[in-house]
Amino acid sequence: MLKVEHIGIAVKELAISIPLFEKLLNSQCYKTESVESEHVNTAFFQTGDTKIELLESITNDGVIAKYIEKKGEAIHHIAFEVLDIEAEMQRLKDEGFILLNETPKKGADNKLVCFLHPKTTNGVLIELCQSI
Amino acid sequence: MLKVEHIGIAVKELAISIPLFEKLLNSQCYKTESVESEHVNTAFFQTGDTKIELLESITNDGVIAKYIEKKGEAIHHIAFEVLDIEAEMQRLKDEGFILLNETPKKGADNKLVCFLHPKTTNGVLIELCQSI
Repeated sequence: MLKVEHIGIAVKELAISIPLFEKLLNSQCYKTESVESEHVNTAFFQTGDTKIELLESITNDGVIAKYIEKKGEAIHHIAFEVLDIEAEMQRLKDEGFILLNETPKKGADNKLVCFLHPKTTNGVLIELCQSI
Repeated sequence: MLKVEHIGIAVKELAISIPLFEKLLNSQCYKTESVESEHVNTAFFQTGDTKIELLESITNDGVIAKYIEKKGEAIHHIAFEVLDIEAEMQRLKDEGFILLNETPKKGADNKLVCFLHPKTTNGVLIELCQSI
């Protein structure tokens, strides 16, 4: 794991949370992006070497909508940058972690991503990501 | 906010979670520290420019024990490094954020810290920290 690439935060409405995080971080949102395959709109902030990614559900039954229904607005995941996602997926699988996707998939911000099941990672949803 | 200094994760037992995160991050825990005032034992990992801090409650009724009782093991907070914690506390107060301590207090890892109430920060517990 090279670094914490970003921290994903589930929010109800970007229109409310973008200005809130701009005040909090004292930094402007530099990009928004829709990821249709994940049913989310995203907004990015840079802080040091790590991004904050706000996630808003596009649909009422998407993963983020369900997460908020269960837990409220909260931190959703930690994403670690890796050099070789397939090698890292294999290493973690060999260590007993459960992968939520068996092959890397296309995520936001021009990345290949893989998620690990939180039941094997202390309740924390972990994303691996590799720049394309 | 200069950077994400660390991400705090609430765990039941460091004895279980330290080896788990060593496998996950492929990196050794480099320090453990007890913070008596907060009733926690902590364990640190370095990943890029950001630390992962595991938090185990020392007492059955401490903040971390109560958090786990309510939410299970999970990400507990995001800590941002700041240059001048008192100036940043004042700026955030002026922006309408609620501080959980009105003066900086001594945290783990030789830091002055202040927490912001999650109800003003999208459900995310935010820590400001300044190296002493």
